[in-house]
Amino acid sequence: MQLPNPSRPRDLSFVPTFNPPNFAKPGLASAPDARFVPAPADGVLPEGFFSTTNLPTYVRIGGSWRLPKEPRMDSALVLDQAGELWVREGRRVKEGDRVAVGEAEDGTQGIFVHAGAFMEEVGSDGEFKFMVSEVSREKPIDYALMASILVNERDGGGYPIWVAGPALVHSRARADMTGLVTQGFVGALLAGNAVAVHDIEAAIFGTTLGMSNTGQPTEGGHGLHMRAINRVRAAGSIERAIETGLIKSGIMHALVSQHVPYVLAGSIRDDGPLPGVYSDTLAAQDAMREHTVKATGAIFVATALHAIAVGNMLPAFYLGDQGPAPLMTICVDQTEFVVNKLKDRGTHQAYGVVTNAQDFMHVLRFYTERWEQSGT
Amino acid sequence: MQLPNPSRPRDLSFVPTFNPPNFAKPGLASAPDARFVPAPADGVLPEGFFSTTNLPTYVRIGGSWRLPKEPRMDSALVLDQAGELWVREGRRVKEGDRVAVGEAEDGTQGIFVHAGAFMEEVGSDGEFKFMVSEVSREKPIDYALMASILVNERDGGGYPIWVAGPALVHSRARADMTGLVTQGFVGALLAGNAVAVHDIEAAIFGTTLGMSNTGQPTEGGHGLHMRAINRVRAAGSIERAIETGLIKSGIMHALVSQHVPYVLAGSIRDDGPLPGVYSDTLAAQDAMREHTVKATGAIFVATALHAIAVGNMLPAFYLGDQGPAPLMTICVDQTEFVVNKLKDRGTHQAYGVVTNAQDFMHVLRFYTERWEQSGT
Amino acid sequence: MQLPNPSRPRDLSFVPTFNPPNFAKPGLASAPDARFVPAPADGVLPEGFFSTTNLPTYVRIGGSWRLPKEPRMDSALVLDQAGELWVREGRRVKEGDRVAVGEAEDGTQGIFVHAGAFMEEVGSDGEFKFMVSEVSREKPIDYALMASILVNERDGGGYPIWVAGPALVHSRARADMTGLVTQGFVGALLAGNAVAVHDIEAAIFGTTLGMSNTGQPTEGGHGLHMRAINRVRAAGSIERAIETGLIKSGIMHALVSQHVPYVLAGSIRDDGPLPGVYSDTLAAQDAMREHTVKATGAIFVATALHAIAVGNMLPAFYLGDQGPAPLMTICVDQTEFVVNKLKDRGTHQAYGVVTNAQDFMHVLRFYTERWEQSGT
Amino acid sequence: MQLPNPSRPRDLSFVPTFNPPNFAKPGLASAPDARFVPAPADGVLPEGFFSTTNLPTYVRIGGSWRLPKEPRMDSALVLDQAGELWVREGRRVKEGDRVAVGEAEDGTQGIFVHAGAFMEEVGSDGEFKFMVSEVSREKPIDYALMASILVNERDGGGYPIWVAGPALVHSRARADMTGLVTQGFVGALLAGNAVAVHDIEAAIFGTTLGMSNTGQPTEGGHGLHMRAINRVRAAGSIERAIETGLIKSGIMHALVSQHVPYVLAGSIRDDGPLPGVYSDTLAAQDAMREHTVKATGAIFVATALHAIAVGNMLPAFYLGDQGPAPLMTICVDQTEFVVNKLKDRGTHQAYGVVTNAQDFMHVLRFYTERWEQSGT
Repeated sequence: MQLPNPSRPRDLSFVPTFNPPNFAKPGLASAPDARFVPAPADGVLPEGFFSTTNLPTYVRIGGSWRLPKEPRMDSALVLDQAGELWVREGRRVKEGDRVAVGEAEDGTQGIFVHAGAFMEEVGSDGEFKFMVSEVSREKPIDYALMASILVNERDGGGYPIWVAGPALVHSRARADMTGLVTQGFVGALLAGNAVAVHDIEAAIFGTTLGMSNTGQPTEGGHGLHMRAINRVRAAGSIERAIETGLIKSGIMHALVSQHVPYVLAGSIRDDGPLPGVYSDTLAAQDAMREHTVKATGAIFVATALHAIAVGNMLPAFYLGDQGPAPLMTICVDQTEFVVNKLKDRGTHQAYGVVTNAQDFMHVLRFYTERWEQSGT
Repeated sequence: MQLPNPSRPRDLSFVPTFNPPNFAKPGLASAPDARFVPAPADGVLPEGFFSTTNLPTYVRIGGSWRLPKEPRMDSALVLDQAGELWVREGRRVKEGDRVAVGEAEDGTQGIFVHAGAFMEEVGSDGEFKFMVSEVSREKPIDYALMASILVNERDGGGYPIWVAGPALVHSRARADMTGLVTQGFVGALLAGNAVAVHDIEAAIFGTTLGMSNTGQPTEGGHGLHMRAINRVRAAGSIERAIETGLIKSGIMHALVSQHVPYVLAGSIRDDGPLPGVYSDTLAAQDAMREHTVKATGAIFVATALHAIAVGNMLPAFYLGDQGPAPLMTICVDQTEFVVNKLKDRGTHQAYGVVTNAQDFMHVLRFYTERWEQSGT
Repeated sequence: MQLPNPSRPRDLSFVPTFNPPNFAKPGLASAPDARFVPAPADGVLPEGFFSTTNLPTYVRIGGSWRLPKEPRMDSALVLDQAGELWVREGRRVKEGDRVAVGEAEDGTQGIFVHAGAFMEEVGSDGEFKFMVSEVSREKPIDYALMASILVNERDGGGYPIWVAGPALVHSRARADMTGLVTQGFVGALLAGNAVAVHDIEAAIFGTTLGMSNTGQPTEGGHGLHMRAINRVRAAGSIERAIETGLIKSGIMHALVSQHVPYVLAGSIRDDGPLPGVYSDTLAAQDAMREHTVKATGAIFVATALHAIAVGNMLPAFYLGDQGPAPLMTICVDQTEFVVNKLKDRGTHQAYGVVTNAQDFMHVLRFYTERWEQSGT
Repeated sequence: MQLPNPSRPRDLSFVPTFNPPNFAKPGLASAPDARFVPAPADGVLPEGFFSTTNLPTYVRIGGSWRLPKEPRMDSALVLDQAGELWVREGRRVKEGDRVAVGEAEDGTQGIFVHAGAFMEEVGSDGEFKFMVSEVSREKPIDYALMASILVNERDGGGYPIWVAGPALVHSRARADMTGLVTQGFVGALLAGNAVAVHDIEAAIFGTTLGMSNTGQPTEGGHGLHMRAINRVRAAGSIERAIETGLIKSGIMHALVSQHVPYVLAGSIRDDGPLPGVYSDTLAAQDAMREHTVKATGAIFVATALHAIAVGNMLPAFYLGDQGPAPLMTICVDQTEFVVNKLKDRGTHQAYGVVTNAQDFMHVLRFYTERWEQSGT
């Protein structure tokens, strides 16, 4: 009898390659330079400002087309004193900063959003077909493919960011997440206070929100997460609580031990919060963006708030050695709704996996472990 | 580096043992015999008939308390000519059959529904607790426990019935289901036409509803399930299509090869149908009930219609060597709603697993394989 | 203070008009006649048969293009002795019937599926947009539009079929459904045994599955639907139970009183069943199809099984006075999943409304009542 | 023909009355005084601190039992210099503050959590019943009851807080929410940046996230919310944008015009943010809590984050003239999951309404309008 042998790492050559814009074609060849107007006040953009998307965007300056730095959606194009071009959130713009104006995205005002950068031939020709929906629990989940992406990211020097919600800890995928951190598959973890609180409660008391590892509420359990938070607050920091031996296992332990960076963003739902949590949401955004600008891939597991937040600041591509490359974005959730909501907020590139976070992590880890063991 | 070692088969001693009724206690000791009234016509019960539940039910006849045969809910108690007591659907009652009347369930009319047969001490004392909901995607899934139940059922001579919806085939859990059949974990499979159609389309064409095994709709794919059905209809039966080599793999192939019984029940949604499908729903119910009366366990995967149908005919217990024992019922679905709906229709004993069918089957099979291999 | 005034009936001129095929264009002008091959046995189609869709389909016979009668998907094209062309389910084909063969849908084998019949200019040009998902709880529900469609169907001699699941009765939309029947908005009702059972339990006992109209389970309530069924079985038919005064209100009462046809299709989940329910699923399909071939519109409320079953037999168009016209299909469900599953089974034309059945019926009725009262 | 006449305002006498604790009973009569220990540092509680719930909690001090001020869950009991007893979040405790210790909730350590304060006789006696789940889309929604609660709150001087998610604005319940504010049914609105952003985009451009009021994405629409935010930032505040006529309608307009207080809490998902949004989550919690301590009722519509956040700080009761009274908490969501998650985080008192936010608001407003008009 044989264990199902996970297929070998998948060839990733299917990844669409970059289709460069043709600046010689009529509309673009005759395009004017983009127009820049000074911001009227700190945090206020000039009327008619260009509002960015997550797609490769070319701005014509001095007759040549340039890609701005640090792309993201819902932001402005700013040309700094040194002549460098940035994508910058409106709130970070200062009075007098030069901001691009124009609403056209076709280059006619000097700004070209390259929507077809990675466009595959889809041929939505109206042919009658079954099973055409993009995101569905009825679609097969290709774990071999996803594990291949992880291995590829790690071994190719990528920077995959993980974004996780607390269900991942509740549901005992904690051990699998810890394993993936240890194996080097996590570039950075972006999460909220609750992920760390549940993880640390599990490390100290063996429960999450007072629930045992077989899913039963325990006597007096409702206070355990508060006791866990309080002990870390007494220690002064998560790092210090690990040094003193208060926290001996789990996700936070692995992150700190392996020197994998993390951001814990605050929310109004937080108890505590733990030391190190950014209670200011704008500071949290800035901290998260330090990672999204470096990201080469993204995996969102069991979170709506954080997935959409990170999706907002994540370009659909990254700049690799051969120019723009698609930024693989995987969104795992129990419902199609969260994936579609993420797409409806502009993260169209997300590949949806509709399943339980616990099972996703367990099966994904199984595939990666197998390859590690077999030396491939 | 180590693969997560699935814990050894779990001790199942937690299973609640039977708590026999105390017929000596005041209310029951003085109970009258149950009253039986002839049915007024074929398929019509006398007014005031006793409507059964899925719990152990004692009927006082000639001064002694008896358990009826073939228990299920939503049916009548019939005393046949030979003095045998049966639970029987109203539609199967004949004019003149003796039917128990009385609406009381506390024994005062000679019928006692033993609601506390397996009652654990739950102590719902109003204490403030988190995570008290019974069915939630946020609860850990105890695969070791479920695999233990499967192994225990098989090795202990049990008769576990599986009830599956087509998502199981779509989502490529087909290989895992086939494996579980081959390994002897399936007593009988109760499903619909679609499960067999998708399975056979996959065997012949490699697609399900024209979707490839990576989830893409294929050119001309919408007709493939019709072509699969037509070929089996031409062959005359699923069994014959296997003999002729038309069907060489999959769930139906494994069931037939291993002589595991199956029932394919028809529905108004069916294409074809395949030969062997019960197009008459009452004939299908009768065929299904031949298995539910023997069941010692039940696993429902990704189906609402079939789960509730089988739940309706499934007692919450079976008669083992030591008297009534709880009939382990597991319901796997992507949403809490289906599990709760099943419970709302009376199958309160169902243990809910909220995840994707593909992942459930994959992880469950992983645990069972491990134990097989390690010789435990 | 003013009640929100429902906008006046909406102009329906947005409905896409039929875009006739251009048979003069190269590929089609030179197309051969379709080829017909005799069926090898009763209920068995010749290999290579053409498998139909729900789109307008033209078949070239004797040099001219013809639309078959009684279109539906997943069926065969049969040319009868009289030279009439039909769409017919495989199981209804007799040995020797002439069946069209060919898998091409572009006319090159004499069969042309007119996928662009009602195609609007959608311009899915890759432009970056938010909120592009088709079915979402976040989209506004246009009740004025739907009420306009209903009024238009009724006053224009249409034949709108309603397909409903039992949640509609549970959730007390029963009164609203009854009202819509009475007002003439229902051409035919296609449902299952459970809809009628709950409706009749409510008429006799005031409960549904023993649940009171404020949602509380009642003492002894679990048997009430069985008692309701039994009384109707004793009466002999639903119609007779209405005549005798057993049933004095509700949906079934309104249908019978207003002579609105209905089909109650059986399933394996049925208790009883009630007299008049088609326990044979193929007979039920035949009975349902008598209505789908006449349908000019369709509304599916809170049902997956029946919606998909009816969707399978429902063309995406009907033949009006000016040729093919789109068959308005509305699918109401609590989740996006059911709507998308329906689409994934080929009913792409369905317009999804993601809400609770009770509220949908209530608000829809409110709009129709308003217009009735104001005399528009 | 008659419009369905909404039943008259419902008698609310069903509301459970307070069942005072019996301090004379053995365990409590002999209870010691609670023990207080100084906090070791700012924001750090002493080990063994008592962690609060949302239930009425009595603390024995100097031989008498006292209820603390400003009750909420997940916090500490602090006795201030003036001898006043408070429930206070750990982060707000200062070094040296006297904090109650003890984990027992039964009074044996001087702290008694009165779990049975409003306990109804539920009689969960194991009796076999259908439809016992508490939260289900299949349960009737009692709008008459909810409207009665609203009217009662308003006319009786209550302080009902509304907590809303952005789906409420997307889905065009915006007009209904505006109406309810105008009619005086809203004590305070607690929401996030997005609710105000969508509302103001609709006021200025007629779209939400670029989606038209019939649900279609519009050309260039993805930037409209950014333009709306930018204009308000330029104006300096929402209030100023209303004064200048930039915002002429909608929810924010009604709140400001009617002097109804609101809190806009920040999150990492925010664009902008708008002026007036609390970007610091702890400041936002403090601002929200100023309202929860006054609340006599709470309505959560289409939000998970905000509902759970407010649920955490909301006691299950308020102190009325006759002592503690249950704090009516209604949670409206498209899925059972959000309601159950809220309960799993301790807000057990929530009454779940499973429907679409748009329809909920529309029907609720219809009922309240009717009563207003009929002068009841």
